[in-house]
Amino acid sequence: MVEVPQTDEGWYMLHDFRQIDWDAWRNAPEQKRERAARAGREYLASHESAADSPDGEGTSAVFSIIGHKADLMIVHLRPTLDLLSKAERQFERTALAEFTTQPTSYVSVTEVSGYVSDDYFKGDEINEGLRQYIEGKLKPEIPDDEYACFYPMSKRRGEEHNWYTLPFEERAEMMSGHGATGKQYAGDIDQIIASSIGFDDHEWGVTLFAEDPVKIKDIVYEMRFDEATSKYGEFPGFYIGRRFPPEDLLAYLNG
Amino acid sequence: MVEVPQTDEGWYMLHDFRQIDWDAWRNAPEQKRERAARAGREYLASHESAADSPDGEGTSAVFSIIGHKADLMIVHLRPTLDLLSKAERQFERTALAEFTTQPTSYVSVTEVSGYVSDDYFKGDEINEGLRQYIEGKLKPEIPDDEYACFYPMSKRRGEEHNWYTLPFEERAEMMSGHGATGKQYAGDIDQIIASSIGFDDHEWGVTLFAEDPVKIKDIVYEMRFDEATSKYGEFPGFYIGRRFPPEDLLAYLNG
Amino acid sequence: MVEVPQTDEGWYMLHDFRQIDWDAWRNAPEQKRERAARAGREYLASHESAADSPDGEGTSAVFSIIGHKADLMIVHLRPTLDLLSKAERQFERTALAEFTTQPTSYVSVTEVSGYVSDDYFKGDEINEGLRQYIEGKLKPEIPDDEYACFYPMSKRRGEEHNWYTLPFEERAEMMSGHGATGKQYAGDIDQIIASSIGFDDHEWGVTLFAEDPVKIKDIVYEMRFDEATSKYGEFPGFYIGRRFPPEDLLAYLNG
Amino acid sequence: MVEVPQTDEGWYMLHDFRQIDWDAWRNAPEQKRERAARAGREYLASHESAADSPDGEGTSAVFSIIGHKADLMIVHLRPTLDLLSKAERQFERTALAEFTTQPTSYVSVTEVSGYVSDDYFKGDEINEGLRQYIEGKLKPEIPDDEYACFYPMSKRRGEEHNWYTLPFEERAEMMSGHGATGKQYAGDIDQIIASSIGFDDHEWGVTLFAEDPVKIKDIVYEMRFDEATSKYGEFPGFYIGRRFPPEDLLAYLNG
Amino acid sequence: MVEVPQTDEGWYMLHDFRQIDWDAWRNAPEQKRERAARAGREYLASHESAADSPDGEGTSAVFSIIGHKADLMIVHLRPTLDLLSKAERQFERTALAEFTTQPTSYVSVTEVSGYVSDDYFKGDEINEGLRQYIEGKLKPEIPDDEYACFYPMSKRRGEEHNWYTLPFEERAEMMSGHGATGKQYAGDIDQIIASSIGFDDHEWGVTLFAEDPVKIKDIVYEMRFDEATSKYGEFPGFYIGRRFPPEDLLAYLNG
Repeated sequence: MVEVPQTDEGWYMLHDFRQIDWDAWRNAPEQKRERAARAGREYLASHESAADSPDGEGTSAVFSIIGHKADLMIVHLRPTLDLLSKAERQFERTALAEFTTQPTSYVSVTEVSGYVSDDYFKGDEINEGLRQYIEGKLKPEIPDDEYACFYPMSKRRGEEHNWYTLPFEERAEMMSGHGATGKQYAGDIDQIIASSIGFDDHEWGVTLFAEDPVKIKDIVYEMRFDEATSKYGEFPGFYIGRRFPPEDLLAYLNG
Repeated sequence: MVEVPQTDEGWYMLHDFRQIDWDAWRNAPEQKRERAARAGREYLASHESAADSPDGEGTSAVFSIIGHKADLMIVHLRPTLDLLSKAERQFERTALAEFTTQPTSYVSVTEVSGYVSDDYFKGDEINEGLRQYIEGKLKPEIPDDEYACFYPMSKRRGEEHNWYTLPFEERAEMMSGHGATGKQYAGDIDQIIASSIGFDDHEWGVTLFAEDPVKIKDIVYEMRFDEATSKYGEFPGFYIGRRFPPEDLLAYLNG
Repeated sequence: MVEVPQTDEGWYMLHDFRQIDWDAWRNAPEQKRERAARAGREYLASHESAADSPDGEGTSAVFSIIGHKADLMIVHLRPTLDLLSKAERQFERTALAEFTTQPTSYVSVTEVSGYVSDDYFKGDEINEGLRQYIEGKLKPEIPDDEYACFYPMSKRRGEEHNWYTLPFEERAEMMSGHGATGKQYAGDIDQIIASSIGFDDHEWGVTLFAEDPVKIKDIVYEMRFDEATSKYGEFPGFYIGRRFPPEDLLAYLNG
Repeated sequence: MVEVPQTDEGWYMLHDFRQIDWDAWRNAPEQKRERAARAGREYLASHESAADSPDGEGTSAVFSIIGHKADLMIVHLRPTLDLLSKAERQFERTALAEFTTQPTSYVSVTEVSGYVSDDYFKGDEINEGLRQYIEGKLKPEIPDDEYACFYPMSKRRGEEHNWYTLPFEERAEMMSGHGATGKQYAGDIDQIIASSIGFDDHEWGVTLFAEDPVKIKDIVYEMRFDEATSKYGEFPGFYIGRRFPPEDLLAYLNG
Repeated sequence: MVEVPQTDEGWYMLHDFRQIDWDAWRNAPEQKRERAARAGREYLASHESAADSPDGEGTSAVFSIIGHKADLMIVHLRPTLDLLSKAERQFERTALAEFTTQPTSYVSVTEVSGYVSDDYFKGDEINEGLRQYIEGKLKPEIPDDEYACFYPMSKRRGEEHNWYTLPFEERAEMMSGHGATGKQYAGDIDQIIASSIGFDDHEWGVTLFAEDPVKIKDIVYEMRFDEATSKYGEFPGFYIGRRFPPEDLLAYLNG
C-alpha cells in the first residue's frame, strides 16, 4: 500500500444552505417579517460570537448566494460535531426558519496534511510561527466583508489516473506545485480547507475568500492547469456569495 | 468463471432515514409535540428491545444526522425481511410520523464471506472463539453512545479495473490487506457489514461506529489508499450522525 | 454487422410502483380507509384473475416493497399494451389511488431469444416439452406466496467492452454460462425476463421469485461473476418485496 | 477539421409531455371534468388541423403514454418556433391544463442530411420522387391510429469512439448500413427524425410509428447491433404510447 | 505546469430562469394578472435600461423559452456581482414573482482570453478598433428582436483527452480553428462568452443570438466537428428562446 499522508484536524464545519420562500416573505405582514428578521439576526449574531459554544470556541458567518441553488450560506466552525448539529437545529427554532428551506449542506472538519506541512508532522518541536500557521488552518477566523466561494472536491480514482495509487512523493510534489500557484494569490485570496471523507459525499470542502470575485475565478482557473487538479481534481459544483453582517439581514431580504 | 466467495448471512438490516418537517414542528401546539415525541420514544424503545420480534431477536437504534440529507437514521436489525417491513410501517402509525418524511433508506443483510473468514467456511468444526466472532458479525449488537457513519459501497466493474473478473486469490489478498488496515483501528472503530446485492441499489452497506468522529474520517481516508478501495471501491455518499437514547428524542427535536 | 439474436415475444408487462401517502392514511377516518382498502382489494383481485382481459388472458400480482423507493409493486402481464394502459388508469379510478403516488414504473414485453432457445427458432417442429417451456416464459404465471426482486438491466456498450459488437457465438456462449449458473438455483428461484428496448429506459426488466430472500442475494451475487454480467451487465437499481394476497391489503396498510 | 454533413430543415417540432393529476380528476365534479375534456378535445382537434398556423401549415397529434413518466404526449409540427411556443402556452389556457403538469418536453427541427440524401444536396435538379421524399421528411404527416415511441439520441464523443472525429466517408457508410437495417422494416415502421442540437439537451429526437409495438422493440433492438449505434449511439430514455383521436380524450381520462 | 491563458473580464452576468405557475395564472382574477404583468413589465423595462446601476452601466433582456425547462430567461449584465444579486431579489419583490418559480440560473462574468485576442494582452498600445472589439465582448449589448440559445460548457478533463494538460500552442491553435468556423457565421450569429469557473457548476456560459433559429442549430452542429469541441467540449444542456420587449409580457402570458 502506498503511504498515507499524516493529518491533523481542528474544528468541525457545517455549510448550511438556505433558500428563502419568497412568496411567503412577500405575503407576510410587515410585523411578521420584522420579527423573523430580528430572530434571524439574533441567531446569526450569537453564532458569529460562538455564544453557543463552551469557552466560546468557534465562529460563524452568513453569505448571500447568487442564483437558484441557495439564497443564504451559513457557515459554522465548532470544536464538536454536536455543536454543529445543535446550530442546525437551533436555526429551525427561529421565526426566520419558517421562511426557509434547506436545499443542501456540507459537513467537514478542518485539516492540515503531511503533504504541505511536513515539518509539523515530524514530531520535533515546532517554532511559534509554524504553530500559529497550523492553528490558523485548524481554528480559522472567517475573513470580514468579502466574497466567498464554496465547492466540494474529490481526488479522481479513474482507471488510468488514480490519485490514491500514486506514490506519496508524486502526490506531495503535485500538492507543492499546487501550493506554489496558491501563493501567487497571497493577499488576494484566503482559504479554509476541510476534509469531508466519511462525513459527506465528496472528499474535501474548500471555501475561498476574496475582496474581488474575479480573483476567485482567476485562482480556480489557473489551478485547473496544475497537474494535481487537471488530472486528479473533481468538482461537482460551485457556490458564489458575499458576506454580510447579521444586522443587514432585513435589508437583504427586502431586496 | 472466476471463483465466487462463500458467504453466510444473519439478520436483515434497514437503515430508515427520516427528515423532520421543522415548519410543522415549530407550529404545532406543545401538547401535540409532546404526544408525538412520546409516541416516537415508545416506538424507538420497543424496537431497541426488539419487542416486535419473535423471541426478541434483533435490535434497533436511532441516530441524529447532520446536514440536509436527513435528520434521523433509525437502524433495524431483524431475523426476517417481514419484520423490517413491519417496523417501517409501524413507524408510520406513530404520531411522530406526521412530522417526518422518508428521504432515503437502505435494505441489506449482514454477511460474512470466505475472503476474510475462510476457516469458518472450510466445513470443519470451528472453535468457540470463531463461532462467537461470526455470530457477532451476523447478529451484531449496536454499540452504545457513539458516532456512526453509514455508506453504501459497490465494487467497480470498470473497463480496465473490474473486481468481478479478478482471480479469487487476488481479491482475497486485497481483502486481507484491507482487513489489516482495519485492525489498526481495533478499539476505536466498530463496524457492521451487510450485503445489499439484489436488495438495494449498491452492493453493500457499511455502518461504522466510533467515540471520536475523526477516527471515522481517518479510517475511511486511510482505507482509500488500500488497493481494494483505491482501484475497486465506489462510494455514492456518506451520512454522519450520533446515537441518542429514545428518551432524548424530545430534547433533540427541541434543538 | 454482427448477427442479431432471434426473439419471440409474449405478454406485455407493467411494473406499477406506488407510494402510500401515510399522512393521509393516518388521518383519514376509519370508514374512508376501509372503503379505500376494499376498492384496492377488488381492483387487485379482479386484475389477478385478469377479469379486465378478453378471454381472461394475463395475470397480475401485488408485492409490498421495503424502503423509501416504493410501498407497493403491482405487476400486470397482458396480451396488449392497451390493457396495461387501461390497468394503470383503472387503478387511478379506485378510492385507494387517492392515498398513493406513482414514483416509478417499468414497461416491457416477455421475451425468449435465440441465445438460449435455439431449437425453438430453428423452424423445425418443436416437441411439446419445449413448446410448454417457451409458453411458460412468454405467458408466465406469477409464483404464489414468495419474495420478489425487480431490476432493470442493460448490456454495456463501453469503449472497450461492448456487448453489441461481439460475435454472436461469443455472446451465446456467455449467455449459456449465465444460464448454467441459473440452473443451480432451479427450485429456489423463478424468473420472468422481459425486454424493454424501445419501451423504457433500460434494455430488460428482470423479476426474480424465491421463498428465501437470501437466495435472491445469492444468485445475483454469483451471477455478477459471470462474464456476461461482470463485463457487460449494468444495473441501475433493485427493488425487494413480498407478495401478498389482495385480501391482506388492509392489514398491510395498517402496519 | 473533418467534413460536416449538409443538412436541410423543415418544420419545428415540440414533444409536449403531460401528466394527469389523477387525484384532482377523480375528485372533480362531473361537469368540471366534462368541460375540461371538451376544452382539451377542442385544443387537440384545432391543433391537429393546424388551425393556429398561417396557411394551416403543420400538424399535431396526441398519444397516451404508459408508465409514470407521462400520461399524454402531444406532438406539434409547425413552420416556426413561435408557433410551437404559442401552442404550448395555448394549452395552458385550456380548462384541461388545470388537471395536468408538464414533466418533460423536447424541442427539435425536422432534418435531412447529406449522409443519406446526397443527391438532394448535389445542387443538380432533383426528380419529383426525391423531392416528394424529402418533403415528406421535412413536413411529415403523423401516421394515423398507431403506436409511437419517442426517444432523444446523441452520437458518442468518447475518448476512443468519437463520432465527430471520424472521416465523413466512415460516418456515411455507417449511416448507410443503419438505413439498410431500417429498410427491412419498411411498411412496419414510420419515423420522424429531427435535430435538437442547440435546441435541447441531446442531439436528435426520433419518433417511431408502428401498428404492432413489438416491431418498435425489434427495430430498436436490431439497430443496436449496427455499428452506428452499438459504438456511437447514446439513448437517455424511451417513451411508448398510442395515438388516439381527440374525441376519445374523455374516455381515456375516465380509464 | 502548462501555460495559462491571460484573461480580462467585464460585466458579471446572471441568466435567471423562471417558470410560470400556469394554474395560478389561469385562476387569478384579471385585475391581479394585469397588476402582475404591469409590475413585471416595469421591472424588465427598468432593468433593460439599467436604471438600477450606478452610471446606468449594464443591460438586461427577457426571452420566452420553449419547453418544460423554463418559461422565461431574464439575462442581466452588470458591473458588480452585488447588482446581480440585487436584480434577482428585486424580481422577487414584484407582483409577477408570485406567479413564478426559479428552476435554474447561471452566474458568470464576460471574458476575453489570450487564445483569441493575443494582441490585446501583449501590453503594447492597442488600436481603437481592437479596443472597441474587446469592449464589445466585455460590456456587450444584447441584440434586439432575435432568437437566443443559452448553454453552459466545460472543457473535458478525460483520462486520455484532457484540455488542461495540453500545451498552450495546441489549445490556441484549436481555439483559432474554432474561431474560423465561427467567422463563417458573422452577420448571422452574435455571441456573449462568459466564464463561470468558481462561480457556477460548469466553466463557461455561452449565449448565441440569431434572427433564424436554424442558424443556431447549424453553428452548434458545425462546431461540434471542430477538434476543440469534438474532443474537448462538454455540454450539459441547451435552452432556446426568443427575445420580446417588456411591453409584450401580458400578451406572452395570455398565450
